[in-house]
Amino acid sequence: MSSIWGNKIKLSIFGESHGEAIGVVIDNLPPGIQLDLQYINKQMIRRAPGKNKLSTTRNESDLPKIISGYFNGKTTGAPLCAIIYNEDTSSKDYSILKDNMRPGHSDYPAYVKYQACNDYRGGGHFSGRITAPLLFAGAIAMQILQKYKNIHIGSRIKSIYNVEDDAQLKNINENSLNNLKNMDFPVLTLEKSAEMQAEILNAKENLDSVGGIVESFIINLEAGYGEPFFDSVESRLSQMIFSIPSVKGIEFGEGFNISSMKGSTANDSYYVENEKVLTKSNNNGGIIGGITNGMPIIFRTAIKPTPSISKLQNTVNISNMENSELQIKGRHDPCIVQRALPVIEGAAALTLLDLILEREGELLWKI
Amino acid sequence: MSSIWGNKIKLSIFGESHGEAIGVVIDNLPPGIQLDLQYINKQMIRRAPGKNKLSTTRNESDLPKIISGYFNGKTTGAPLCAIIYNEDTSSKDYSILKDNMRPGHSDYPAYVKYQACNDYRGGGHFSGRITAPLLFAGAIAMQILQKYKNIHIGSRIKSIYNVEDDAQLKNINENSLNNLKNMDFPVLTLEKSAEMQAEILNAKENLDSVGGIVESFIINLEAGYGEPFFDSVESRLSQMIFSIPSVKGIEFGEGFNISSMKGSTANDSYYVENEKVLTKSNNNGGIIGGITNGMPIIFRTAIKPTPSISKLQNTVNISNMENSELQIKGRHDPCIVQRALPVIEGAAALTLLDLILEREGELLWKI
Amino acid sequence: MSSIWGNKIKLSIFGESHGEAIGVVIDNLPPGIQLDLQYINKQMIRRAPGKNKLSTTRNESDLPKIISGYFNGKTTGAPLCAIIYNEDTSSKDYSILKDNMRPGHSDYPAYVKYQACNDYRGGGHFSGRITAPLLFAGAIAMQILQKYKNIHIGSRIKSIYNVEDDAQLKNINENSLNNLKNMDFPVLTLEKSAEMQAEILNAKENLDSVGGIVESFIINLEAGYGEPFFDSVESRLSQMIFSIPSVKGIEFGEGFNISSMKGSTANDSYYVENEKVLTKSNNNGGIIGGITNGMPIIFRTAIKPTPSISKLQNTVNISNMENSELQIKGRHDPCIVQRALPVIEGAAALTLLDLILEREGELLWKI
Amino acid sequence: MSSIWGNKIKLSIFGESHGEAIGVVIDNLPPGIQLDLQYINKQMIRRAPGKNKLSTTRNESDLPKIISGYFNGKTTGAPLCAIIYNEDTSSKDYSILKDNMRPGHSDYPAYVKYQACNDYRGGGHFSGRITAPLLFAGAIAMQILQKYKNIHIGSRIKSIYNVEDDAQLKNINENSLNNLKNMDFPVLTLEKSAEMQAEILNAKENLDSVGGIVESFIINLEAGYGEPFFDSVESRLSQMIFSIPSVKGIEFGEGFNISSMKGSTANDSYYVENEKVLTKSNNNGGIIGGITNGMPIIFRTAIKPTPSISKLQNTVNISNMENSELQIKGRHDPCIVQRALPVIEGAAALTLLDLILEREGELLWKI
Repeated sequence: MSSIWGNKIKLSIFGESHGEAIGVVIDNLPPGIQLDLQYINKQMIRRAPGKNKLSTTRNESDLPKIISGYFNGKTTGAPLCAIIYNEDTSSKDYSILKDNMRPGHSDYPAYVKYQACNDYRGGGHFSGRITAPLLFAGAIAMQILQKYKNIHIGSRIKSIYNVEDDAQLKNINENSLNNLKNMDFPVLTLEKSAEMQAEILNAKENLDSVGGIVESFIINLEAGYGEPFFDSVESRLSQMIFSIPSVKGIEFGEGFNISSMKGSTANDSYYVENEKVLTKSNNNGGIIGGITNGMPIIFRTAIKPTPSISKLQNTVNISNMENSELQIKGRHDPCIVQRALPVIEGAAALTLLDLILEREGELLWKI
Repeated sequence: MSSIWGNKIKLSIFGESHGEAIGVVIDNLPPGIQLDLQYINKQMIRRAPGKNKLSTTRNESDLPKIISGYFNGKTTGAPLCAIIYNEDTSSKDYSILKDNMRPGHSDYPAYVKYQACNDYRGGGHFSGRITAPLLFAGAIAMQILQKYKNIHIGSRIKSIYNVEDDAQLKNINENSLNNLKNMDFPVLTLEKSAEMQAEILNAKENLDSVGGIVESFIINLEAGYGEPFFDSVESRLSQMIFSIPSVKGIEFGEGFNISSMKGSTANDSYYVENEKVLTKSNNNGGIIGGITNGMPIIFRTAIKPTPSISKLQNTVNISNMENSELQIKGRHDPCIVQRALPVIEGAAALTLLDLILEREGELLWKI
Repeated sequence: MSSIWGNKIKLSIFGESHGEAIGVVIDNLPPGIQLDLQYINKQMIRRAPGKNKLSTTRNESDLPKIISGYFNGKTTGAPLCAIIYNEDTSSKDYSILKDNMRPGHSDYPAYVKYQACNDYRGGGHFSGRITAPLLFAGAIAMQILQKYKNIHIGSRIKSIYNVEDDAQLKNINENSLNNLKNMDFPVLTLEKSAEMQAEILNAKENLDSVGGIVESFIINLEAGYGEPFFDSVESRLSQMIFSIPSVKGIEFGEGFNISSMKGSTANDSYYVENEKVLTKSNNNGGIIGGITNGMPIIFRTAIKPTPSISKLQNTVNISNMENSELQIKGRHDPCIVQRALPVIEGAAALTLLDLILEREGELLWKI
Repeated sequence: MSSIWGNKIKLSIFGESHGEAIGVVIDNLPPGIQLDLQYINKQMIRRAPGKNKLSTTRNESDLPKIISGYFNGKTTGAPLCAIIYNEDTSSKDYSILKDNMRPGHSDYPAYVKYQACNDYRGGGHFSGRITAPLLFAGAIAMQILQKYKNIHIGSRIKSIYNVEDDAQLKNINENSLNNLKNMDFPVLTLEKSAEMQAEILNAKENLDSVGGIVESFIINLEAGYGEPFFDSVESRLSQMIFSIPSVKGIEFGEGFNISSMKGSTANDSYYVENEKVLTKSNNNGGIIGGITNGMPIIFRTAIKPTPSISKLQNTVNISNMENSELQIKGRHDPCIVQRALPVIEGAAALTLLDLILEREGELLWKI
């Protein structure tokens, strides 16, 4: 399977951090979609490196070039391929990493899996950089969901390192999600934002890194999407979200917390309002039995601290199988949570779009 | 997709809680596998209902009958179908549930998805009962992994309701995993076991239910399995584990906890011992960049309290779209955590077997 | 992949000729379909053995028992499993075939592929008998296509051995296709039917067998189904039709014949009639660029003579790797063309249904 | 599914005839393969247009640029993307074809399927030009099969228009296949070659086109590959071959001819030679029960005359739904058979490589 995903819409992502280019083929996009390139680029920029001192100084425009599947300002229905050429690569930084496996990085498992043939420069195909084409595809999906289904996705940073924002998003609606989407560092409580950013800079100064938790919200997906068992919405979303590098946990609704509730509290009671079935609580995060129930989908994603740190680390030299020490030079983010956040949204959007196309077919958007 | 799973080995599970039978077709099992039916049945019995007062009184032998793909005591390589006939069904209990949607259950989303045609008796195809054929397939996978790869899987209950067992499994090896596997209620700390069981019985008395967290360990899977991105080991395992009803969260290694570590702590340093690459800590739970690194795979699964409770609940009557009240009769578990535990192990085993067959092909076991 | 098929609707077929049972799981059938069991059984009977002296004397009712996915006379949307128990097996007949590979049969390649573990009795999972559950699934698909899309499928025997029926079906419509469907031995020219049947009986008397060509017609599938390249309608249909044992060739429209036409003749000119786009000729058999153009789909399937013959044959004994001789006892058909014909129709129906569900989604049949 | 193919190795092809570029992503290529770019380019040149007066004057180097998955002269195991930029496009030629549907071309079905949004210039994504990246992937597969498995594929033109070469390839071996592969116009009988080419030029002069039949041979694929039913070798090969534009028929071994044989003739008797099981005849073309038997795989592909002809044709104007006339200007091939031939070989090679990787895993080529 590798780098191909999807039941109906299909993605094939390719490229390496320091190769010639990275990109994506999106297969089975419905025809006739007018892409709002400004919106898409805005999403790309949310993830882009080099924006401020919170992230790596690698500076790339990272705006993709569409080379197929797009004609007269609309998708054609044929595979849409988009490419981002690698501009600001500095491969020299990575040359000593060929033999010394970076802790927390894919270097060693990739060495074994690919029998020493993997492109080790900057993590190669494992680089977080490959999430740029994933986000590009995701931004197209977001745009389609908004325009044709009024589905909106937003996220907030729930914690960075040990700074947690306990506030809850009370009113999950288009406005509140758009507000989050327009923030550079989307947090519910502004004081927490400052504390979190301070921790990131603190980690940077100490040649260290921090992780965090992202909480995501999806509204207006109607009841009835998903499947029992292997294609449950949780199964589909978790498969996708865990493909984002550095993700180590996911939970839906109350998640791990629901395991310490009583059934009488955990069960979301139904009631009828304006001829619609709603639930009073939403402990199940909008998904029951693997299928949407019409309530907002809520999930949290745990992201580990950036494995690239400049501190001296113990490791092994794979060429002589001896213990060694390593100090990673190069440029890296002290924290990737805020850059991963739009990727999570895009990945979720792709999953929802796939679920919708499976259920409703390709003719959703009749001209 | 629905009830079919797998890249190489393929499962198709079928059946409803109160229909004629439930079962599974396992496609692409390697030929020549001598099934240890005693071992398989032992796993099935771990999940079986009616064993003691902790679970539902529904009493079924639940031992599957193999009707294809098995010849002269060995798998043939052709699809292996196994069927479990439903014996102890009491459909009357469920008749009033046709219209009144049980909170926390799939009733309402299934009603919408299947346009009111779903078999609502006992949850139909959504019933936890369908995990019996899943476990049957999983037990075959477990047996194959043990015999041909020395891979072992074990789990412990980490928490029930608010009783948490803080002990850690220090020595993760065949012995310690087998010990857990032989316990009816596998917990590391015996006093905690008593407390947990007391909470289950307490919930039962109060017509309520509780959930919990299962921690699972997999040893001896070598480095190099899995894929970057969409078929990362985390993606594959989470997709599978979330197909088990009532699961609401999963985390690998330190999981959500890793998000509050510094990179310098979170990174698992490599070292060489006996010409093998190992890591000092295992905060990544044996998976880096989506690929196994040879260390034990560790993951935790959050299970919600059984949604079926006998307390009076508010809900809606879907036939007249009015608010209603519901008291679920029938037989149900005050806690499913201990019954879900072997299913989690079986589901994980299937995932690993699929990863291995993808990487190593069908000729793994040459005669 | 093996015995699982489909993009949207999914089949998993299982069973062996002389095992306990054969069957099929049909996944993702739309909910709410009232099955016309009489129609389905009628299709099954068209394929059933033992009807007359043209086919094997093996006599089985072969009517499947639905054990899941069907509730209150309608499909539920959950996997529908149907089982046919093997009643009239006489395994003794096949015991000497364990070592002596039957020419023209799967015995030898199956021996290699499954490393001698395959169920060799009557061809095991390779038996033409496994087309019974395939036809069962196909008959459901046929019924759905007729009821909801007015799509009809019919076939005629174009040749048996060297007897060819040169007549062409001039008016391809519901009537003419139903007429064919109601004939035991569907041929356009009745005198040819007698000649063909005489050749079959002649082969039987001579302990030999014959093959033939089936021509199939599908009407009322609108333009726009299928894909360029790998999921062209020809790709999808041919993949499916070649899964029917003994098929060795397939052609669409004028097929091999079109290769000796000039472009100016081969091209099907368009014209407009009643605001519909039609073509004057139909040399492309209703498919252009892999996609339907609204004209009848026409394809021909070449079926080889039954490999089971009672004549003495040269072969090898696989246990001692020596040349040997073999006389197959058992019961077998002197010709399977007339029994394969409804299976071809059913297989085509499944393919079309899959194409339609992919394009139009699961909500095609709203209640 | 659309433009993605494969179980183990995966292809995603993209691009339009007159867009910016065409290309392919090849996923799951084993790591460590040294590509023989000279060999690959040689295969590309066999298909390339503009070589001589038998084909279109469109002149493009058509040599692909690898932009990922290739490092230090070897495949990395990560997705390999290759791009061919469209150089010699002359879109003006095609502008009047927007409304007037070319007979025999995908224009009309594509118009319906993609709801008028398809790139109509030169057939867009349906263009035979998209077979260039397919052949690129196929040439890599050919090279791998040759190097690691000694599998060779060759083809000859069996007929062009009504000129048939009745000669049979008696000795199917590496030499004879290489001889064919080195011929510009590979035919067994040289006089026939002249006659065939004369017919092509004759068609060209008359503003018409011709088709033909290609016969392909594969040697040294051992017994045991493929599956019963849906993934039979015939199913897999036919699915792939029918994705090549203009293919209308395929047959294996004696194909349609086997339907007029007696079973006693059609059955390929086994015998033992040098401890290998062989068959005397090869009427089944190396495939029995969907699985290879170790004999050469032989299949024939029927290719229709190029639909692009310069003669005046009747058609419809889709914008006003009226009958119209059309004279196609542009550049086109009077015959594509000789250019399709290497594409057929490449497509077959991809299919075999996929079968082998499925059976033998990714570790086939250990470093």
